[in-house]
Amino acid sequence: MAVPRSPLAPDGFPKLPPLAGVRIATRACGVRYKGRTDVCLMAFAPGTAAAGVLTRSLTASAPVLWCRKALKGRRARAVLVNSGNANAFTGRAGVAAVVHTVEAVATALDCRPSEVFVASTGVIGEPLPDERITAEVGALTRALFDDAWQTAAEAIMTTDTYPKGATRRAEIGGVPVTLNGIAKGSGMIAPDMATMLAFVATDAKIPGATLQALLERGAKRSFNAITVDGDTSTSDTLLLCATGQAAHRRVSDAGDPLLKGFRAALEDLLIDLAQQVVRDGEGAQKFVTITVGGAASARAARRIGLAIANSPLVKTAIAGQDPNWGRIVMAVGKAGEKADRDRLAIRIGGLEVARDGQVVPGYDEAPVARHMTGRDIEIEVDVGVGRGRATVWTCDLTHGYIDINADYRS
Amino acid sequence: MAVPRSPLAPDGFPKLPPLAGVRIATRACGVRYKGRTDVCLMAFAPGTAAAGVLTRSLTASAPVLWCRKALKGRRARAVLVNSGNANAFTGRAGVAAVVHTVEAVATALDCRPSEVFVASTGVIGEPLPDERITAEVGALTRALFDDAWQTAAEAIMTTDTYPKGATRRAEIGGVPVTLNGIAKGSGMIAPDMATMLAFVATDAKIPGATLQALLERGAKRSFNAITVDGDTSTSDTLLLCATGQAAHRRVSDAGDPLLKGFRAALEDLLIDLAQQVVRDGEGAQKFVTITVGGAASARAARRIGLAIANSPLVKTAIAGQDPNWGRIVMAVGKAGEKADRDRLAIRIGGLEVARDGQVVPGYDEAPVARHMTGRDIEIEVDVGVGRGRATVWTCDLTHGYIDINADYRS
Repeated sequence: MAVPRSPLAPDGFPKLPPLAGVRIATRACGVRYKGRTDVCLMAFAPGTAAAGVLTRSLTASAPVLWCRKALKGRRARAVLVNSGNANAFTGRAGVAAVVHTVEAVATALDCRPSEVFVASTGVIGEPLPDERITAEVGALTRALFDDAWQTAAEAIMTTDTYPKGATRRAEIGGVPVTLNGIAKGSGMIAPDMATMLAFVATDAKIPGATLQALLERGAKRSFNAITVDGDTSTSDTLLLCATGQAAHRRVSDAGDPLLKGFRAALEDLLIDLAQQVVRDGEGAQKFVTITVGGAASARAARRIGLAIANSPLVKTAIAGQDPNWGRIVMAVGKAGEKADRDRLAIRIGGLEVARDGQVVPGYDEAPVARHMTGRDIEIEVDVGVGRGRATVWTCDLTHGYIDINADYRS
Repeated sequence: MAVPRSPLAPDGFPKLPPLAGVRIATRACGVRYKGRTDVCLMAFAPGTAAAGVLTRSLTASAPVLWCRKALKGRRARAVLVNSGNANAFTGRAGVAAVVHTVEAVATALDCRPSEVFVASTGVIGEPLPDERITAEVGALTRALFDDAWQTAAEAIMTTDTYPKGATRRAEIGGVPVTLNGIAKGSGMIAPDMATMLAFVATDAKIPGATLQALLERGAKRSFNAITVDGDTSTSDTLLLCATGQAAHRRVSDAGDPLLKGFRAALEDLLIDLAQQVVRDGEGAQKFVTITVGGAASARAARRIGLAIANSPLVKTAIAGQDPNWGRIVMAVGKAGEKADRDRLAIRIGGLEVARDGQVVPGYDEAPVARHMTGRDIEIEVDVGVGRGRATVWTCDLTHGYIDINADYRS
């Protein structure tokens, strides 16, 4: 794809420090792409705990079904990821491909198959040439490195225009811990959760059940609060692995006060990665933050926010730099959540546009229109019925999206 | 809008015969547009029964709220429609505008306000200059004609590229009756029911409650089975008025065998109008028929069909003439309705593409790709769990859609 780097991309890939208990290798296996890495193996120290959030698609891919089962053991020794082919809608052959690759990794790392996670992203419906991957598993395990996060982020890209990574530090009982994460995704991005893969690791020592609770909570306000096109992938996978190499005090459940800093750092890292996915939205020219308040609940607020974020009419208006708040009203109305038409208020770029269900007296569109010419668009809506709040992120809908998606396979 | 006539448009406006008990006038009132008619008045004979289906938007316009109330009386003497301004999200001023125009018509036609229906379509959030309409009500009532269906269809257009009309004949107990209908809409088209206005009249004599039941049933398989962009308007209004001028035997409820022919003619006419709306979908280059079978229920089939029809990735693939059935699988998965991934079957243009959850052996894409180059695209999906069936219609998502919607207000 000769698509230039998104204009919304961050300046560069952040420096992710090595993380005790995690080693990474990447390789060009020729799954589909030529002349680039397309397989990534992450290997974890024995005793690593695993948590995951997977797509809710009812036509989920073979790798997703495998991960769902493997997560029950709450243990991870490896994650094997390939780009180029999603191994989705591939029938029995797809299941066999998962088994072959998992067994190759389990043998090479001397662990149980249930400790090996797999994720695939790319074209749907074509058989995964798994022998191209299994043939290279030996070479991958011999090339494991503790400082390969950026190459990992590059190997898992599909239509992404830049690799995505983030790192955070926190303390647990005074002992520093690190969180590193990488992600990919730029289309078919929608709750829950789109062709989005994200892999986060930490050296903290957190029991599997606690890790799972922390991840689910974090995903709600990050990866499940973003949308590019409302389309949900068959392959969405977010994994969090904790190697337990940090020598902090023992933690209990997700509400443990010891985990306060860790919770905040994890949520912050997940939001960072999720926003990077939106900033690479196919054809995106503008990054849009939508905050909904006054809703009946946080869930209602999120649904209203996503109705706005997924509206093609709102998204094209933003692409056209048009402060068309009438379309925001329309989207609020179609969300199906309680809203008081006569108390509705809208701000764009911090400027009051509508209040009490109508345009503000003496409304001056000029400064609002100026805000719309920027890269970062802020929309705030208050629906006037309660105290529920949520923030979601999306991008505009442009000719670039059509260009990319009307021609993806050719 | 200098948008050329849709390539999917029918050859011309059909000949709608005069209909006993219906007279129509149109006028250029300068609500927003210059140099074109923008107000239409339909006047009905005393004793005309009325039925209606209105948007479910929770931010419905003032005219919709008025119609909802007026429909309780089940009687119509007039429908007043304006284009250019939707009178939506206009607060108290919007309610007052409705009252002013309704009272002007009721006075001119010497009927009760509750027998006057109003519909407005166009820009949201700007006050409706109702005095421009009320000033012309007298002139409108003096210009009522019994052969003005096409001019009516033209007066209610907004971004439409052609006027939409249809006519059908039926017999009730051997006595011929006529149904005429007009519609407008080309964007913000989605169940239930989008910036879509449709007005159908018949000379049949059908009690109000029966008429309502017939219309709701017909709407389900027509206007509520189409989508252009998944966006739901604040203004959707479908009205059916029966003047009772035909001298047929008395009918009872909607299931009355006497109404068999009428029911079929009504449904056929509604589907015709609904398809014309899709064929005028903003930027549409292809008309897409999606039939879903094997679902748990007809409702589930319709939801799966609409998930496919609303998927930007499916719609852009169709625009790109790409038989990308993987995206159809994705959309089935996100619909949230029961589907058996391993029994899923897909046909495109009548050609088998996938069966038992995977691509058919020896799949030859060439003839399928040829079908994709046509104007009319047929997609059939069987989800393999039950006997529920539904058909929905949509169009592709093209650069034209972006052009129109990134620049609508300027």
